[in-house]
Amino acid sequence: MSSLALVADEAPIYTLLSPDVVVAAGKRIAPFITRTQLATSGLLNSWLGHEVFFKMECQQKSGAYKIRGAMNALLSLKEQGQLPEKIVTFSSGNHAAATAKVGKMLGVETVVIMPSFVSKVKQQATAGYGAELILTKTRQEAEAMAVEQQSKGAWLLHPYDSDLSIAGQGTACLEALEDGAKPDAIFAVCGGGGLLSGTWLAAQKLAPESLVFGCEPELANDATRSFRSGAIQAFNETPMTIADGARTLKVGQRPFAYLQKLDDFYEVSERDIMYWTQWLQNLLKASIEPTAAVAMGAAHQWLRTQDKKRRVLVILSGGNMDAATQALLWKQDFLGERPTL
Amino acid sequence: MSSLALVADEAPIYTLLSPDVVVAAGKRIAPFITRTQLATSGLLNSWLGHEVFFKMECQQKSGAYKIRGAMNALLSLKEQGQLPEKIVTFSSGNHAAATAKVGKMLGVETVVIMPSFVSKVKQQATAGYGAELILTKTRQEAEAMAVEQQSKGAWLLHPYDSDLSIAGQGTACLEALEDGAKPDAIFAVCGGGGLLSGTWLAAQKLAPESLVFGCEPELANDATRSFRSGAIQAFNETPMTIADGARTLKVGQRPFAYLQKLDDFYEVSERDIMYWTQWLQNLLKASIEPTAAVAMGAAHQWLRTQDKKRRVLVILSGGNMDAATQALLWKQDFLGERPTL
Repeated sequence: MSSLALVADEAPIYTLLSPDVVVAAGKRIAPFITRTQLATSGLLNSWLGHEVFFKMECQQKSGAYKIRGAMNALLSLKEQGQLPEKIVTFSSGNHAAATAKVGKMLGVETVVIMPSFVSKVKQQATAGYGAELILTKTRQEAEAMAVEQQSKGAWLLHPYDSDLSIAGQGTACLEALEDGAKPDAIFAVCGGGGLLSGTWLAAQKLAPESLVFGCEPELANDATRSFRSGAIQAFNETPMTIADGARTLKVGQRPFAYLQKLDDFYEVSERDIMYWTQWLQNLLKASIEPTAAVAMGAAHQWLRTQDKKRRVLVILSGGNMDAATQALLWKQDFLGERPTL
Repeated sequence: MSSLALVADEAPIYTLLSPDVVVAAGKRIAPFITRTQLATSGLLNSWLGHEVFFKMECQQKSGAYKIRGAMNALLSLKEQGQLPEKIVTFSSGNHAAATAKVGKMLGVETVVIMPSFVSKVKQQATAGYGAELILTKTRQEAEAMAVEQQSKGAWLLHPYDSDLSIAGQGTACLEALEDGAKPDAIFAVCGGGGLLSGTWLAAQKLAPESLVFGCEPELANDATRSFRSGAIQAFNETPMTIADGARTLKVGQRPFAYLQKLDDFYEVSERDIMYWTQWLQNLLKASIEPTAAVAMGAAHQWLRTQDKKRRVLVILSGGNMDAATQALLWKQDFLGERPTL
C-alpha cells in the first residue's frame, strides 16, 4: 500500500504567471497543434439536465494535451534564439510521445527516458517520432538520469514543473472558452499539476467568475491532500490507479502555487473512472483514456450538488490506452446502467 | 456451423440508379447530418508507404453512416408530401438507432423491432431517441413482424434493400471524394450491401477511374460467394463474426445489382479484424467498431499487391460497440506488433 509523506525539502515560493502568457502561448503554438473540438452529447445533457462541454484533447496531436506545453517551451526558446541542440525528458506517459513529436517537428535531438514497464505501444509511439529511447527500471531512475543528462548540457523539458509548459497547457482551456463554453465550473485532472495550473490561468483571463476544480483518483489523492493541508504531500510508491496519467508521486512546486488557488478538489473512485471512461467512449465515439474520465467523474459529483441548471467544461486530457488498460477497463459492463444525476 | 444456400426465390432484376441521386441525397441531408472528417494517420502512412484516407462515419450522428440512408428516405417522402405518420424497421444494429433518431428529428412515430439478444446499450440508444421498441426472439421474427406492421399501414424503412437508402449511404463516399481523397481504390464493408451500392454510385460520379472493392469477414462471406457465383447466397443462421454489422444472412436484391459491378471482394480473418480495430482506435483516437475495421483489413491486402505508391479511401462505417464486444476485442494485445506492408 502506498503511503503519503510530507515533502521535507524547503519549497521555494513561486510567483504566479500573468494569464497573458497563456494567450501568447496560444498564438505561438496554434500553427502546429490541432484546435480540438468542443464537443457535447445531447443524450448525456438530457439525462443529466445540465450542459456538459468536453474539450477533446484526446484528439490532439500525439493523443493528449501534453504537446501544447512541450511546443510552447521549445518555440519560446527558439524565439529567443536559444533553441537547444538536444533535449531530454523523463515520462512514462503522454509527455514522452509529445516531447518526441515536438523534437522531431523542430529538428532537435531528443532523448526520452522511461521505465521499462511502460507498454510497448507507448515505447513505439515515442521511438516512432525518432527520439532516442532509454529504458530504466524505475520512474525515479528515469528522472535521475534525465537530471544527469541536463547537467551534461541537454535541455530538460520537465513534464509539469515548468512555467513554459504551464502556459502551453493552459491553451486547451483558453480555446474552449474562446469557442463559447461559458462554463459555471471547469474540471481538469491532476497529475503533476501542469494542466490544472494552465487551466486556472486561462480561466482568470476569459472566465474569471467560473469555478475551477481539480480532481484525482481516490487511489492517487496526493494533490487533494496537499491542497487541504497547504503543503505538498508525496507518495513513496506509485499508486496503482487505472488512470495512469495521475500516478505521479507528487505535484510540482510551480504547479502547487496555482493548485492552492482552486475552488476545491474532488476524488473519484476506480469504479467511477471506469464507468465514465466506458460511457464517454460510447457517447462521444472517441478514444478517451481513464485519466481523462476522472474529470467527468468530478463534474458529476459537483452537478449532483447543484439545484439549478449548470454549464460545465470538462477537459478530456488524452486518448492513449494500451491493450492491458483496455482489457482491464472492459472486464465489467457499465453500459447497461445509463448516467443519471 | 452456418452453411450457405442459394436463395431460391426468383430474383427481380433491378435497374441501377443514376449517380445523380447520390448528389441530390447529399444536398437533401446535409443540414441534418455531420460532414465527417476525412482523416489520415501520418504514422500509418509512413509504416505502409502508401496514403490511406479514412472517412470517419464512426463520428456520424448516432455513431454510423446509417443515418444518411434513413434521413434521405424520410426527407424524400416529405418533399413529395408523403411523410408517413408511422415508420417501422427491424435491425439488431446501427440502423435501429439511426431510424429512431431520424423519426424523432422529423416528428414521426417510430417502431423499431429487434431481437432481444441485442445489447442493452443498443436498446437504450434506440429507446433514448423516443422510438417504440419491440423485442423478438430471433432476427427472422423481427423482420416478419416489421412486414406485418407494414401491411397494417406503417411505412417500412428497410435497412438496406431500398433505393432511397442506397442513395443516402452513398453520400459518405461522395463527401470524401469532394474533400479531395482522390483514391486509386475505395474499400467499404458489406452487410446487406446498401453502403457498398451507394459507394459505387458515388465513385461513378466523382471518381469513375477508381477501383471499388467490397469486403467481409471470412466467417460471414455470403456476399463474396454471391459475387463470385453471380447469384445471391444466404446463410441459414447468423455467422458469429466479431464484426456484428456484417452478420446479415444475405445481401439485398437491390444492392446485389450494384455488387456485381464491383472490382473484387476481399475476405478478412477475425484476427485481422481485431488487429485493425485495435490499431485504428490507437492511431485515429476514435471509437472504431470491428465492422468498420474490416475495410482496412481489405485495403491492407490490396496494398500488399501493389508495386507503386497508392492512395486508398477506407470508409469507416461506424463506432458503436457494446462492452461484451470490447471485452472480446481486448483479450489479445495486437498493439505490440505495429502495422507493416
